[in-house]
Amino acid sequence: MSSIRSIDTWDVRFPTSRQLDGSDAMNPDPDYSAAYVRIATYADDGLSGHGFVFTIGRGNDIVVAAIDSLAAPLLGRDVEVLLDDMGATWRAFVHDSQLRWLGPEKGVVHMAIGAIVNALWDLKAKRAGLPLWKLLADLTPEQVVDLVDFRYLSGALDRDGALAILRAAREGREEREARLLAEGYPAYTTTPGWLGYDDEKLERLCREAVAEGFRQVKLKVGGDLAEDVRRLGIARRAVGPDIRIAVDANQRWEVDEAIAWMRELAPFDIAWIEEPTNPDDVLGHAAIARALAPMPVATGEHMGSRIMARQFLEAGALSVLQIDATRVAGVNENIAMLLLAARFGVRVCPHAGGVGLCEAVQHLSMFDYLAVSGTMEDRMIEYVDHLHEHFVIPTDVREGRYRAPSAPGTGMEMRAASIAEYEFASRGQQVRGQ
Amino acid sequence: MSSIRSIDTWDVRFPTSRQLDGSDAMNPDPDYSAAYVRIATYADDGLSGHGFVFTIGRGNDIVVAAIDSLAAPLLGRDVEVLLDDMGATWRAFVHDSQLRWLGPEKGVVHMAIGAIVNALWDLKAKRAGLPLWKLLADLTPEQVVDLVDFRYLSGALDRDGALAILRAAREGREEREARLLAEGYPAYTTTPGWLGYDDEKLERLCREAVAEGFRQVKLKVGGDLAEDVRRLGIARRAVGPDIRIAVDANQRWEVDEAIAWMRELAPFDIAWIEEPTNPDDVLGHAAIARALAPMPVATGEHMGSRIMARQFLEAGALSVLQIDATRVAGVNENIAMLLLAARFGVRVCPHAGGVGLCEAVQHLSMFDYLAVSGTMEDRMIEYVDHLHEHFVIPTDVREGRYRAPSAPGTGMEMRAASIAEYEFASRGQQVRGQ
Repeated sequence: MSSIRSIDTWDVRFPTSRQLDGSDAMNPDPDYSAAYVRIATYADDGLSGHGFVFTIGRGNDIVVAAIDSLAAPLLGRDVEVLLDDMGATWRAFVHDSQLRWLGPEKGVVHMAIGAIVNALWDLKAKRAGLPLWKLLADLTPEQVVDLVDFRYLSGALDRDGALAILRAAREGREEREARLLAEGYPAYTTTPGWLGYDDEKLERLCREAVAEGFRQVKLKVGGDLAEDVRRLGIARRAVGPDIRIAVDANQRWEVDEAIAWMRELAPFDIAWIEEPTNPDDVLGHAAIARALAPMPVATGEHMGSRIMARQFLEAGALSVLQIDATRVAGVNENIAMLLLAARFGVRVCPHAGGVGLCEAVQHLSMFDYLAVSGTMEDRMIEYVDHLHEHFVIPTDVREGRYRAPSAPGTGMEMRAASIAEYEFASRGQQVRGQ
Repeated sequence: MSSIRSIDTWDVRFPTSRQLDGSDAMNPDPDYSAAYVRIATYADDGLSGHGFVFTIGRGNDIVVAAIDSLAAPLLGRDVEVLLDDMGATWRAFVHDSQLRWLGPEKGVVHMAIGAIVNALWDLKAKRAGLPLWKLLADLTPEQVVDLVDFRYLSGALDRDGALAILRAAREGREEREARLLAEGYPAYTTTPGWLGYDDEKLERLCREAVAEGFRQVKLKVGGDLAEDVRRLGIARRAVGPDIRIAVDANQRWEVDEAIAWMRELAPFDIAWIEEPTNPDDVLGHAAIARALAPMPVATGEHMGSRIMARQFLEAGALSVLQIDATRVAGVNENIAMLLLAARFGVRVCPHAGGVGLCEAVQHLSMFDYLAVSGTMEDRMIEYVDHLHEHFVIPTDVREGRYRAPSAPGTGMEMRAASIAEYEFASRGQQVRGQ
């Protein structure tokens, strides 16, 4: 038996706005950041659990403050009790009646809970000596559903329905694991497509993406229609007819505007239109999906909870669900979202990039392939080639595919030297967390 | 010309859980709290602006941290520039691209922006020597629409549509103001209905409510069906057939459960069912509304933004919109919600109670009566009789009606002695903000 010894947090910000990496129609100058937490125990194994919330700069300190406040009651708690029933651990945070007032289940508090939950998963996986994808895939269907909160999902998904999905996926599981280890999981790249890049850089990066083995690229759109047409022309000529091109408007449009704008871009054979309007607008997304069919509508990186996911799926408001490793309340809630997508027969293509999102979310897609949907068909994880060097186990993407990580943990552990170098000392206050 | 001199915050918590005031099916032990901010200037007038976010205990510190972080850039800013264009001031906060990542427009960051915006409105109204309702009602329609962000509302409400509503309401405005000053605005009371109260207290408080002139009471439900039937029987006998009884489930149910449960309670002549399920579940509320019609469905105290309001209204998912003074990004966004409700012909019956919510939200209903909907028909502001003594200008509710406040400001200023007495020193840290 051992208990939680320390909880340390850091406000880590990378000055990415200087190169316009990550620039899009709504986010002209993001500074990719992480509200980072490390949970250590008194156990002799020396292991600690690491988690974070990805943000784009200002407000990262608010998430750190939320993690500090929410995690404090874990100090001194029995770590085995917490890790042995991660379903109960999750529910104790998410259903805290006083905290629910600040959401419920959305925004800063929900994401901060996600960082803590994910840090505990990191610790659990390290103690088991397994990468998260393997730890999860080796659970029984009963153990998986015990992690999931079915509240507010009835009519769409319940415990029995989830068990049926998980049991069906046991068929062929060993062959799939062998294939995953041999071939990896498909990736697509957003590296060429940021709005701040000039034409030469766009074309060069598109060609490089194809040469590197990616089968899909993604371009940011929504700043100016004529510019989007021109840039899509450059990209289409650069990648040829067989490589898919998705576009991402980052919430730029009203509903009617999205429909009109995307009809102009449709001739470029668009793989999906991502975040066409406000991410809470279920009915708006459904209207866009109907008007633009068969062009797929994709969203998810700002989807606050499994309750929103359920509505988007029921309303036919998306056909590509883009789960995000740090938007919802951690691994447990993302499992619920994978099950919901399987229940509605919708493919999951996770949002990644940012800081460490690739490292983290790949585990969830690999778990999905082995234990939930059972397929990689038309599924891809987003990939952006920056900031990986700051992680202890950086993603290994080769020939357009994520290679399954073998190191224990969730992939969320950042290098201590990177944390020290990029810690943000806010407004002259003392440097926190050291 | 003068500039912002200081921004002070306090974590104020009242130990209301000791008496079970405020207890309901989802919130068994709320400690009514305020994440409180005071903005002072270098002007000779000595005036300061006060605002807060109401919470129910844990996490109040997180909102205080958010206010600290978000308000800091106001220090030294020209106060006239900020107050003269409150639309631009609002947009600078809400459309900050980096902060939007933490929502967008929901949860801790959005509510914290609301506290700051409301504190600026308090300062603006005090400088004008007017109560907020009067300050707002005296604006021209053009000045009102300049306060509103129509983004993501197109198809439902635009600037021209809002102007038409506001211009139509100019007719009869002076008579209505005279009536408001003479008669006040109707209130209903939730004081009798908390789940933690015993039968004797329930019955006594119901009788007292009628004797005090209230025409509607509200009971918390959703803990146990047989208990709810029994308690509604007591309440109906106590108030007689002519007083309305609304019920509030505080998100307790799944959709099907809400429908089945409320069919059992329908014989008690229910004025509305409030928060039957998760407050983000637009489609679920619409299904409940269809199944229980003509029983009205009410929600809003957890409605994160005008974008959610638009969807609930478009989907027919509510017929009573319960705006809250501190849930969204302040006065500006609540004006957008009043305009949306008027556009859809839905009545607004604000959520209040808590700490200072009655003091604050009455101004919005009075503004609505004078300048937006132009009617008090079937409209009421919630009233709960506790914690008013902590405010500099407590609500004046007599004969079941809110009397229009005459003191300048928004009503959100708490007594300094109350702040000092109830400041929460969290986990042995130093007392903040003194």
